[in-house]
Amino acid sequence: MLRRLARPDPRMTPSPPATPHSLGEIAAAIGADLVGDGALPVRGVAEPATARADDLAVAIEPVALRLLAGSAARAALVVEDAVPPRVLSGYLSARRPRHALALLLRLFDRPAQPPGGVHPTAAVEPSARLGEGVSVGAFVYVGDGAEIGRGTVLMPHVTVGAGARIGADCRLHPGARVGERVTLGDRVIVQPNACLGADGFSYATPDAGSIETARASGRITARNTEIVRLNSIGTVVLGDDVEIGANATIDRATLGATTVGRGTKIDNLVLVGHNTAIGDNCLIAGQVGISGSCRIGDRVVLAGGVGIADHIAIGDDAIVMAGSGVGRDVPAATVVAGFPAMPRDEAFAQHANVRRLGQMLRDIAGLTKRVRRLESGPDEGER
Amino acid sequence: MLRRLARPDPRMTPSPPATPHSLGEIAAAIGADLVGDGALPVRGVAEPATARADDLAVAIEPVALRLLAGSAARAALVVEDAVPPRVLSGYLSARRPRHALALLLRLFDRPAQPPGGVHPTAAVEPSARLGEGVSVGAFVYVGDGAEIGRGTVLMPHVTVGAGARIGADCRLHPGARVGERVTLGDRVIVQPNACLGADGFSYATPDAGSIETARASGRITARNTEIVRLNSIGTVVLGDDVEIGANATIDRATLGATTVGRGTKIDNLVLVGHNTAIGDNCLIAGQVGISGSCRIGDRVVLAGGVGIADHIAIGDDAIVMAGSGVGRDVPAATVVAGFPAMPRDEAFAQHANVRRLGQMLRDIAGLTKRVRRLESGPDEGER
Amino acid sequence: MLRRLARPDPRMTPSPPATPHSLGEIAAAIGADLVGDGALPVRGVAEPATARADDLAVAIEPVALRLLAGSAARAALVVEDAVPPRVLSGYLSARRPRHALALLLRLFDRPAQPPGGVHPTAAVEPSARLGEGVSVGAFVYVGDGAEIGRGTVLMPHVTVGAGARIGADCRLHPGARVGERVTLGDRVIVQPNACLGADGFSYATPDAGSIETARASGRITARNTEIVRLNSIGTVVLGDDVEIGANATIDRATLGATTVGRGTKIDNLVLVGHNTAIGDNCLIAGQVGISGSCRIGDRVVLAGGVGIADHIAIGDDAIVMAGSGVGRDVPAATVVAGFPAMPRDEAFAQHANVRRLGQMLRDIAGLTKRVRRLESGPDEGER
Repeated sequence: MLRRLARPDPRMTPSPPATPHSLGEIAAAIGADLVGDGALPVRGVAEPATARADDLAVAIEPVALRLLAGSAARAALVVEDAVPPRVLSGYLSARRPRHALALLLRLFDRPAQPPGGVHPTAAVEPSARLGEGVSVGAFVYVGDGAEIGRGTVLMPHVTVGAGARIGADCRLHPGARVGERVTLGDRVIVQPNACLGADGFSYATPDAGSIETARASGRITARNTEIVRLNSIGTVVLGDDVEIGANATIDRATLGATTVGRGTKIDNLVLVGHNTAIGDNCLIAGQVGISGSCRIGDRVVLAGGVGIADHIAIGDDAIVMAGSGVGRDVPAATVVAGFPAMPRDEAFAQHANVRRLGQMLRDIAGLTKRVRRLESGPDEGER
Repeated sequence: MLRRLARPDPRMTPSPPATPHSLGEIAAAIGADLVGDGALPVRGVAEPATARADDLAVAIEPVALRLLAGSAARAALVVEDAVPPRVLSGYLSARRPRHALALLLRLFDRPAQPPGGVHPTAAVEPSARLGEGVSVGAFVYVGDGAEIGRGTVLMPHVTVGAGARIGADCRLHPGARVGERVTLGDRVIVQPNACLGADGFSYATPDAGSIETARASGRITARNTEIVRLNSIGTVVLGDDVEIGANATIDRATLGATTVGRGTKIDNLVLVGHNTAIGDNCLIAGQVGISGSCRIGDRVVLAGGVGIADHIAIGDDAIVMAGSGVGRDVPAATVVAGFPAMPRDEAFAQHANVRRLGQMLRDIAGLTKRVRRLESGPDEGER
Repeated sequence: MLRRLARPDPRMTPSPPATPHSLGEIAAAIGADLVGDGALPVRGVAEPATARADDLAVAIEPVALRLLAGSAARAALVVEDAVPPRVLSGYLSARRPRHALALLLRLFDRPAQPPGGVHPTAAVEPSARLGEGVSVGAFVYVGDGAEIGRGTVLMPHVTVGAGARIGADCRLHPGARVGERVTLGDRVIVQPNACLGADGFSYATPDAGSIETARASGRITARNTEIVRLNSIGTVVLGDDVEIGANATIDRATLGATTVGRGTKIDNLVLVGHNTAIGDNCLIAGQVGISGSCRIGDRVVLAGGVGIADHIAIGDDAIVMAGSGVGRDVPAATVVAGFPAMPRDEAFAQHANVRRLGQMLRDIAGLTKRVRRLESGPDEGER
């Protein structure tokens, strides 16, 4: 028994199957060297174990290269200088295999691509402005005065707040929340249930609070009996080509804007606090937490689970290793690690030293015994 | 003044109050030993402090057992060999009290259970297929070609992408997002706002990037001036009886599928990266982050806040203790702890050694003084 | 080309621009000292760099104070005793500048404030009760028997489960999920996509499981071949003036209620486990994870990324520093830090000691050499 509403949405259909590319065409498109039959038709891309005869098998990691022997695929993408372990009809050899894979995936990606138009169940306020070719999915709400740039796709259940401005060719996945007055550049991708423009976590106490007394004296001599909210009357601004992960949150500024620079990629479940400014082309991995009022430079890499205290500055090109806790500014182009974070070599040396502690304890015990013997005099020592 | 739309949904009503069970019936149902009046009617289950006279008080923890003395309840569930501190009409004694409680809760659970049918506000694409008894809540969107197995409940505001396949008797809570082509087994539970099938966090640089140079040399000698996206053209596959926590995210694979095996339970705010494969019957606690391309065995336990680097393998039955950071493979049936994670005994010994550092510093200072005395000769030493 | 549904929602418009306040009125409203022209009209509040001539520039941090020199603003808010570096028309001097700022922001906040009424796209079950002036946004679903207090605002896409009770003057942001029977006090703020009342992460095994054997013996001697779910038949209760961050999750109790006390503020991506009770006026920062069955006192501060094991009690006014892992109870009014958490002074001493390890290794090597010399006799020692 099937029941449903008679509400066809011809726009939300998956794209038709891609037309095949020849192996030679692919080589040219992704900048790889072709070995073998360039005329071979390729209909899809897959891992060696699941590839069909007309798929291009991706074997750019050693384990995948070995699996190629048992694969049905007749073509493969491999690393430069790798020797595929069986006779394929042809293969592609790439100096930068992940970059080649990125270009390859573009050829074969078939996202559910809704053509322009507003789903009959969506609600768009009359004062909102939609550019040409915009696609508004089921149950999307677009608030008063919001602007959506041409070609942008709002998947089902997206909320766009009053006065928000979204650039061209963006894709907002289901349940993404764009708060009032938040601004997105062009080609921004927002994964499902990410929140742009929630209020900052910002409070004050009328008199000195417990945190202040602990900072000043190491002791808690005040009680937070009244907590007063600082409303966030600022906004969030994302540059072009920014990507925001699923269930990530970028809080709005108290005044002005929390900003994320052009090309920066932010993973799932990341928290960016109010007033923070992130530069261009950063990579911020899953579950990172960046407190309020930080200054993150350009091309900074924050690995998974990193935490950054408020008001911290991180220089351009710096890398913070996974799980680190950053409590002091990080100079440009340095690698830091640890909790608290310190230069990587120092952190590694410290870890190595901690592993030597058992031996140190034994050495101290041995020395103590030997000194006791020496103190007891030569006769004693001989016994 | 009350205002609302006249849109009754008779299906979303809470279930009627459960009919009472006798204490003896409950004993049989949950496999506990009955002491006292088996005919006693029990209408509900509660904590000792809030239980009414006709509730069964759950007192399987010592503190609850003590509270039983002041409880209105006339019946209780206790641990085997526990002696309830006052005369109840009867009690149930269980060898595995938490397991008995699990069975007890099934008897008294009254979830808002919508009977089959599509809410008038829902939107189901004509090509989607709904099994018998499927319940589709308010504002649910079911995309083109999606299949929903019989008896499955989609709570309000759920999104099911084009081509997704959801098994029988699943329950998807409000705001759960199921991406295009994602597959769920039978009896899967997805908590609110969880995201299945967001894109993986996967990028490449045309030339060697900062991370690569840091790995190779410890120094950053390249800049990530261009970041190229690897589209995720794969999917997510969840086995039967999987549970996914609120606001958790399971990313789709680059190719193939990110997989979660039968019976695995994943808590809130967990991140599972692209291409990762998780085995059967794992327990993955809150805020765990599993990077891409990991292989997690069967029955693995990851405690709260654990982070796992990419391409890591964790063997069957292994346990990773809370807050650990796993940077190397973990053998089967081992317990690891620490950051970086190491065998538990080693981690505990290391912590104990660090706590001895103050004494070691004093010991070294003492030895230094004694050696100096010895070096100064016997006369010097006597002073 | 613009396309949209003709569904005006006059209610969701931004508030009109605030009427200007005079500098003197502001001084009185926020309790700051006025220096200069009290009649100066102020139309907005901004940072020094972006302030216009009729804005009040906020310069309560040293860097902002310096920027005041180049600002267009003719008025500023500064810290008591600060000397603005240029001649303004007037300024406000505050003893507690952040508190003054909080009051200032209230004057100038212009939230999108929907007047009372139900959006035509919302679905409210007939048995639900809405108080006076309640605003129900687009695509909101209010379940059977739910009660919404007067003046409360439900932004678009909010879900309110059957039997939930929400107090007066609350604001639930887009995508917030309130589960069945969950209760909220008055003036509660729930940020986007937060989940109140997801099921607890609670399971049992019919026989001793791997975790139990590891706890008992340090070894894993059992396999979790069957995992049985404990249904959460309890609920969640939030007190008055509670705030819950974006994508945070508060799980319902097994029995009874998970509770958050009056005035407590919870940041984004925080996890509060089932059965946990949190006191009044706590501050719980981003990405904190609190396991099940914890007891958190009043006015407790948990800094970012803190993890707390299950069944832990934290005393009133305690502070847990960022990134700490709490495995033991914390006494009232103490500051703890580290993983595992310990008194702050102890944690700091331990860190300092670890940094001395390199020197200690050198000291031990030096002592070993000197003892060897002493053992070899005086002649040997002279060489």
